[in-house]
Amino acid sequence: MHERGSVGLVRPEDIDFPGAFALDCGRSLPGFRLRIERYGQLNAQRSNAVLICHALSGDHHAAGYHSESDRKPGWWEACIGPGKPIDTDRFHVVSLNNLGGCSGSSGPCTPGPDGQTAWGPDFPIVTVRDWVRSQDRLREHLGIERWAAVIGGSLGGMQALQWAIDLPERVAHAVAIAAAPRLSTQNIAFNEVARQAILTDPDYCEGHYAREGKRPARGLALARMLGHITYLSDAAMADKFGRELISGAPGYSFEPEFQVESYLRYQGSQFIDKFDALTYLRMTKALDYFDPARDYGGNLVDALKRVEARLLLLAFSRDWRFSPARSEEIVRAALRAGRDVSYACIDSPLGHDDFLVPVPEYTRIFGAYMLRVAEECA
Amino acid sequence: MHERGSVGLVRPEDIDFPGAFALDCGRSLPGFRLRIERYGQLNAQRSNAVLICHALSGDHHAAGYHSESDRKPGWWEACIGPGKPIDTDRFHVVSLNNLGGCSGSSGPCTPGPDGQTAWGPDFPIVTVRDWVRSQDRLREHLGIERWAAVIGGSLGGMQALQWAIDLPERVAHAVAIAAAPRLSTQNIAFNEVARQAILTDPDYCEGHYAREGKRPARGLALARMLGHITYLSDAAMADKFGRELISGAPGYSFEPEFQVESYLRYQGSQFIDKFDALTYLRMTKALDYFDPARDYGGNLVDALKRVEARLLLLAFSRDWRFSPARSEEIVRAALRAGRDVSYACIDSPLGHDDFLVPVPEYTRIFGAYMLRVAEECA
Repeated sequence: MHERGSVGLVRPEDIDFPGAFALDCGRSLPGFRLRIERYGQLNAQRSNAVLICHALSGDHHAAGYHSESDRKPGWWEACIGPGKPIDTDRFHVVSLNNLGGCSGSSGPCTPGPDGQTAWGPDFPIVTVRDWVRSQDRLREHLGIERWAAVIGGSLGGMQALQWAIDLPERVAHAVAIAAAPRLSTQNIAFNEVARQAILTDPDYCEGHYAREGKRPARGLALARMLGHITYLSDAAMADKFGRELISGAPGYSFEPEFQVESYLRYQGSQFIDKFDALTYLRMTKALDYFDPARDYGGNLVDALKRVEARLLLLAFSRDWRFSPARSEEIVRAALRAGRDVSYACIDSPLGHDDFLVPVPEYTRIFGAYMLRVAEECA
Repeated sequence: MHERGSVGLVRPEDIDFPGAFALDCGRSLPGFRLRIERYGQLNAQRSNAVLICHALSGDHHAAGYHSESDRKPGWWEACIGPGKPIDTDRFHVVSLNNLGGCSGSSGPCTPGPDGQTAWGPDFPIVTVRDWVRSQDRLREHLGIERWAAVIGGSLGGMQALQWAIDLPERVAHAVAIAAAPRLSTQNIAFNEVARQAILTDPDYCEGHYAREGKRPARGLALARMLGHITYLSDAAMADKFGRELISGAPGYSFEPEFQVESYLRYQGSQFIDKFDALTYLRMTKALDYFDPARDYGGNLVDALKRVEARLLLLAFSRDWRFSPARSEEIVRAALRAGRDVSYACIDSPLGHDDFLVPVPEYTRIFGAYMLRVAEECA
């Protein structure tokens, strides 16, 4: 048995969307597949559905377990389940693997136009706007007129924001957690180093590594290690790993000597077995390109004037990847646009990673807000 | 002709130190060579010599030019020269390439014990304390009883601090700029990712790349790109490069599309032609190991009680690699140790890189302090 408050055993579903699907890059997909999961009952009015959007390395498996022996729950188990902020006793929760992903939805690892050979590097570079449009096809397919809420953290929060701007009548609430209105130059710089790690790995083979029976594991591991540095604050890293030498004295070798070195190597080595490098490249590009103001002459206020949803922004005090100041940019622009927006900066221990963790003040605020959402759509 | 205020044409000198030289790691070098440069006249009392210690990727060439056609001056041209803070009309300036370096001093690229084959990966991992002891041999060789000042930025500032602790009677002033009493966990994490980039490059060949006619250029370039992210603040990167797409719209490729991407790739590609990966690995380890308090039960105050030099600490407001808070740790410990310490945090545009740049308030404060030093030893 898995713990109380969990949705328990869940099963992914694949949904195929036939017909050409035009992308921002100018290319089209000849139809696409989305892998999704659903938790909680859809009510008779079909009004209690919420969409969960995932972050850079996330997927459709947001909560619960895939088998009795499964030891690791979905990535947002902290926030989704009976009695949790996204309460599956009240909501019908829909989560998906995004286009370009590597967990079952159409992407570099799935069959390309010939129906057999994997897309590989020929899979287009997709954008947050593309994702929103593909997710809207999913909404339509599921017979949902309007999401009670679109919710996400980090890159997921950016999708929630884009939803509220692009399809205002389809979103009652947009919840963007630990997000930003667009990346900072430094954020782009980190993404670029991560991409270069992958692109320059000799086993990348110009993206045709699968065909060559290889994979750019070294580059992907480096990209992940670098990512992890930005998921924790300096102070959190110090709290968590200290900086004492494990053996008490220098070993004068390049073996791990500080705990944080072992942690990073472990994170890198774990990641390469569960994630694909071509997807990683595409996720970082979607992040870099994300800039909803761009369609409105660079003016975020004008972009947000389109929004009909009520907005909840949450940020974490120690987050330096997308700091509270970045969420506050969205809040100020939303207020200037005359939108209904709530915001809280949560005092929290880790940094960016806190959006995945049951920080008490976070779940209290998030839960209370979602309770109002549930009451509205009951 | 090169600009006014420059020491002009300079010539490196090689000095050999015969006899076994014991290192912190327990191994010994069978003698060693240091490549140095000197600018400005040594006075009759031999009291006006200052030692310049370099940072991670620095070398002996701190000021001036190597030829009339040389377009790039030494790395600290901003601060060393006639009328500059380290005034060569007043001081005899000595700078060197550290042990383990790749610019002429004994290191992985120079002949090993057999006098012919390069050391390669067998060159020991050296520490800041080792450097101070090797620099003390240089002091002795030059017939200098006491340095008027030992000066450095970043890892160079750490050497200045270690000098003042380890050889108190040999240093009148120690000037540590943009330094830290030891690395933070996050600093170590960045170093570890940089090292992994090099160590996992297939062309690293377990360090024997020179013998194999290869070099881990990809890994070294990644390490350098990552370093550059930490040399500039988030705000400085935004000021310098913005985050607008160069072509105005996404190109949907992995070619550089934001200025900061081109900048990082350029920095990476330039670096691999002038620096050696085995040296880079060793420099980052020296940083990680640096912890003068470790020899004093982890108590920096006790370490600093040994200091006889007067201390000047300078930090830069936007530096997040070694933030002002890190310099202030040293200042507070020095005050508690009853030492004579001055400190200023300079409002500055770039971040860590500001220590290399003629920021007006920086050169004024640094210059005024050095003028007092010059008057003392005149």
